[in-house]
Amino acid sequence: MSPQRNDRRNRPGRSLGAPPEKIDRPELPDGPPPAPVKGGLRTFALGGIGEVGRNMTVFEYDGRLLVVDCGVLFPSDDSPGVDLILPDFRAIEDRLDDIDALVLTHGHEDHIGAVPWLLRLRPDIPVVGSRFTLALVAAKCKEHRLTPHLQEVKEGDRVRHGGWDCEYFAVNHSIPDAIAVAIRTPAGLLLHTGDIKLDQLPLDGRLTDLAGFSRLGEEGVDLFLVDSTNAEVPGFVTPEAEIGPVISDLVRRAPSRIILACFASHVHRVQQVLDAAHAHGRKVCLTGRSMLRNMGLADDHSLLKIPDGLLVELDEAMKLPDDQLVLVSTGSQGEPLAALSRMARGDHRSITIRPDDTIILASSLIPGNETAVFAVINGLTRLGATVVHQGNAKVHVSGHAPAGELLFLYNAVRPSNVMPVHGEWRHLRANAELATRTGVPEESVVIAENGVVVDLVDGRAAITGRVEVGQVYVDGLAVGDVGETTLGDRIALGEGGFISITVAIDQKSGRALSRPTLAGRGFSDDPKALDAAQPLVEDELSRLENEGVSDPHRIAQGVRRVVGRWVSETYRRRPMIVPTVIAV
Amino acid sequence: MSPQRNDRRNRPGRSLGAPPEKIDRPELPDGPPPAPVKGGLRTFALGGIGEVGRNMTVFEYDGRLLVVDCGVLFPSDDSPGVDLILPDFRAIEDRLDDIDALVLTHGHEDHIGAVPWLLRLRPDIPVVGSRFTLALVAAKCKEHRLTPHLQEVKEGDRVRHGGWDCEYFAVNHSIPDAIAVAIRTPAGLLLHTGDIKLDQLPLDGRLTDLAGFSRLGEEGVDLFLVDSTNAEVPGFVTPEAEIGPVISDLVRRAPSRIILACFASHVHRVQQVLDAAHAHGRKVCLTGRSMLRNMGLADDHSLLKIPDGLLVELDEAMKLPDDQLVLVSTGSQGEPLAALSRMARGDHRSITIRPDDTIILASSLIPGNETAVFAVINGLTRLGATVVHQGNAKVHVSGHAPAGELLFLYNAVRPSNVMPVHGEWRHLRANAELATRTGVPEESVVIAENGVVVDLVDGRAAITGRVEVGQVYVDGLAVGDVGETTLGDRIALGEGGFISITVAIDQKSGRALSRPTLAGRGFSDDPKALDAAQPLVEDELSRLENEGVSDPHRIAQGVRRVVGRWVSETYRRRPMIVPTVIAV
Repeated sequence: MSPQRNDRRNRPGRSLGAPPEKIDRPELPDGPPPAPVKGGLRTFALGGIGEVGRNMTVFEYDGRLLVVDCGVLFPSDDSPGVDLILPDFRAIEDRLDDIDALVLTHGHEDHIGAVPWLLRLRPDIPVVGSRFTLALVAAKCKEHRLTPHLQEVKEGDRVRHGGWDCEYFAVNHSIPDAIAVAIRTPAGLLLHTGDIKLDQLPLDGRLTDLAGFSRLGEEGVDLFLVDSTNAEVPGFVTPEAEIGPVISDLVRRAPSRIILACFASHVHRVQQVLDAAHAHGRKVCLTGRSMLRNMGLADDHSLLKIPDGLLVELDEAMKLPDDQLVLVSTGSQGEPLAALSRMARGDHRSITIRPDDTIILASSLIPGNETAVFAVINGLTRLGATVVHQGNAKVHVSGHAPAGELLFLYNAVRPSNVMPVHGEWRHLRANAELATRTGVPEESVVIAENGVVVDLVDGRAAITGRVEVGQVYVDGLAVGDVGETTLGDRIALGEGGFISITVAIDQKSGRALSRPTLAGRGFSDDPKALDAAQPLVEDELSRLENEGVSDPHRIAQGVRRVVGRWVSETYRRRPMIVPTVIAV
Repeated sequence: MSPQRNDRRNRPGRSLGAPPEKIDRPELPDGPPPAPVKGGLRTFALGGIGEVGRNMTVFEYDGRLLVVDCGVLFPSDDSPGVDLILPDFRAIEDRLDDIDALVLTHGHEDHIGAVPWLLRLRPDIPVVGSRFTLALVAAKCKEHRLTPHLQEVKEGDRVRHGGWDCEYFAVNHSIPDAIAVAIRTPAGLLLHTGDIKLDQLPLDGRLTDLAGFSRLGEEGVDLFLVDSTNAEVPGFVTPEAEIGPVISDLVRRAPSRIILACFASHVHRVQQVLDAAHAHGRKVCLTGRSMLRNMGLADDHSLLKIPDGLLVELDEAMKLPDDQLVLVSTGSQGEPLAALSRMARGDHRSITIRPDDTIILASSLIPGNETAVFAVINGLTRLGATVVHQGNAKVHVSGHAPAGELLFLYNAVRPSNVMPVHGEWRHLRANAELATRTGVPEESVVIAENGVVVDLVDGRAAITGRVEVGQVYVDGLAVGDVGETTLGDRIALGEGGFISITVAIDQKSGRALSRPTLAGRGFSDDPKALDAAQPLVEDELSRLENEGVSDPHRIAQGVRRVVGRWVSETYRRRPMIVPTVIAV
């Protein structure tokens, strides 16, 4: 291994990964858009374009708004301590009454997670979605003590929401009951795929409605918004149905316990685990709050077929012989508090990993989670368990169309204009290239990151401006008070800790009333580390007193400078220096 | 995308990824080993087994020590602010005079990076290695103002270092002049591969000496220490020589500037870039301190063939027409201060990325760097550049033998005992399985993580105990004063910031001499965030005064409790609460 790791210490503030403030490309404008052209249709994203997560697209026609999806983004290293990142509602917060409906394409968190925060601003926005999606939304809103106005739709429905004429299409994804939405306006016909793939052997027989898309193509799709997540990946996704035999074979061969982790909303994956366990005479115990909730809802809606007597509760499961149980849990992303991580660290309350255990991670490895997931795999391996994961067995397939499937979509829809959605820039660009290779003119493919306004006028989509879209952080109970300053401080503190210097002075003379107190946290384990700085601070205080300085602010500055220089010269470290001068 | 990211906020201290303190498996013992058996050979690693980096293996026979490699590990999220992690020398620090030689297998940082720290403890340890390896070591030691005692060896040499009878073999890796070492002792014959692969078309014609390994196999290898890095990867590495035509084609087709990033020590990769540029009439400008230094050394040792006039300095390069230049830089791992990251963020001093630029990352993506590297790729893509990387073109091959090549090694050497080295637990386990599949008995394959002692006695290798091996952190100029407490504080501060409360009291009465000062850093952007806590602190101070409490420590405790409760109830956040009470 040639070790040339990214030195996080030298991260220049928060700018890593954040787009530059200004750039020269005309297709990425800085200014606000002009007033919408009469008869034109406007589109802009408040999240989800230029990133993976917090999907939210706004359509505007004749002064009215239709919103598609309202999800959350999970934070990265750039936003430490943050729980969630919301779409930026500012561009529409003065116009909430103009919203005719919020259409949800499916029930994943990055599509529905921010619904409660939008409904807090206007609780009676009609929330439109398929049955399972709305069940998940209702459960989420209940936790937030909100009662949403739900309107159920299904594939084949054509429904008016205010002035918006919407038609819904079945779409295959890694959660049941996903839909795409076609929107007919006088300015043109739009099609938004939501998250999509083209599994030709879906477990529930519910294919992505390519025929419907072709019919729309005949009619003429003026703007096609397409999932970009896997556009860089060549080829086609293996059918979900091919995971079943792999899991079944693992269950058959496992000598003792099986612990399987997967996404808590992946109903079809869980179904295949249930079937495999049943076929080999094992009971199944579902654990984890979200797993239990989602599978309960799936069962309520007949999306899960559970053989009688298959499921057991945890206490009952613990009494079963080891080779008669499959434990299905969350924690596939290495979440440190999840059961699987605790087992890997050897500190789970009731389960101690043994060499005859088989652990299956039937899940993807979401970028950013690599270190945590490999820590779990290494921990379990170290304890002797056999760990099966997508790196060594076909126990996971993606939910997003790769390049080969996207080409099918473009050729079915034959759109006039294309707008790649859902993805980082590398994904958007790859998706745009696929569109042009199927014959969409290059100038008709608009890469419009969050906030960039696309106007469809006379059948031609063009970028006309930009509304402001920033990061909106949820940290604990508060939204929005954590911003760049706080995150910058957290990053600095996380790298170097701090040294505090506390001095009480006589408010008239500026004379120090006691020896200054120096303390460090996150600086050194050595209790004497700061001893050498103490006389420097005392000298500085004497110097300032002799100069007649009594202003606490100036004294604080002087002390900070002295300690800052000392720590830099002595340690080559950059702790935050925090002086507090109290005038008594 | 089903978003189920690892929530770093809930990380329980530093235990994520760290092995559990005690485990039950007999092959992973807790206790110290017994005294070495007379005539037996002892082996233990002070780094590099159970992790990727800081490789260092110690061999002991008849009271004397031979050390192979002495590298550094680059820190992860678990050790924020740390610059480097060293092998833990404690197990040998009282026995430095017993070391007969330090043998270095090649010049990568994870094999030579900690040499200066070992030489600081005993400067005259003989340092043995091939020519290019020693050139890199000498340059490194010079920076540390050390003059090492170097002893050059080359493949085919058989040399005694003290009582150690060593034979050296050519090995192919991603840096020139790598060697494997065979060590003959009365206890048996050892072979340590170092980092290795079996490229059958190496650019320098210097093949891994499989014939030599087979000859050792005939003689009988009693303990085979084998690179595990790619043991999970099936198949074979594509020859390095196949990268050349890909790069050449990219250079031929690029309409304007080319910026190529790769590892600063990958001489053969740079050679192919030089050849491609030369073939298509472009000049080459090397940038980055380590790139310039290493390629200078490679040129000095005739490892690089540079056509006359091909290389230009940066100022000259900036004057060339765009289509006549290839800029070769470091920064392929998304290092935020490297030129490439600056370009991606749009804040490079002299280079502004344009849509006709071609950027080539001819490099691997080291686990843990994904977010940083993709941020660079996205930033460059957003600015319109064409970004070529191992994800979309064959511009990189690994330097480590995958499973197919490891099988060749096992079948050539036919060892009696195997000890996988260089890798995390998942790699070690995969490598062990390959060994057993070639016929090595399962009980003769010892997975011995850092510190685990393996004794070879009567031809049988067995684990007999454990010496303590911890993390040794270099942060700035100091080594060892940053430990678990400091890192735990950094992680807590990095997630939640801190709130400081400063109070001056009368040392006799405990009466507060002024209003308490509350300040937060990394807590909230809202300047009034702490206002509501002020009266709570004042009430607590009054309460304590009324109770006659004047002990600063007890007052600090009371204030911390009040603010901690308030912040938890009001914000559901966990900033560090830092009270300072000054008695005047």
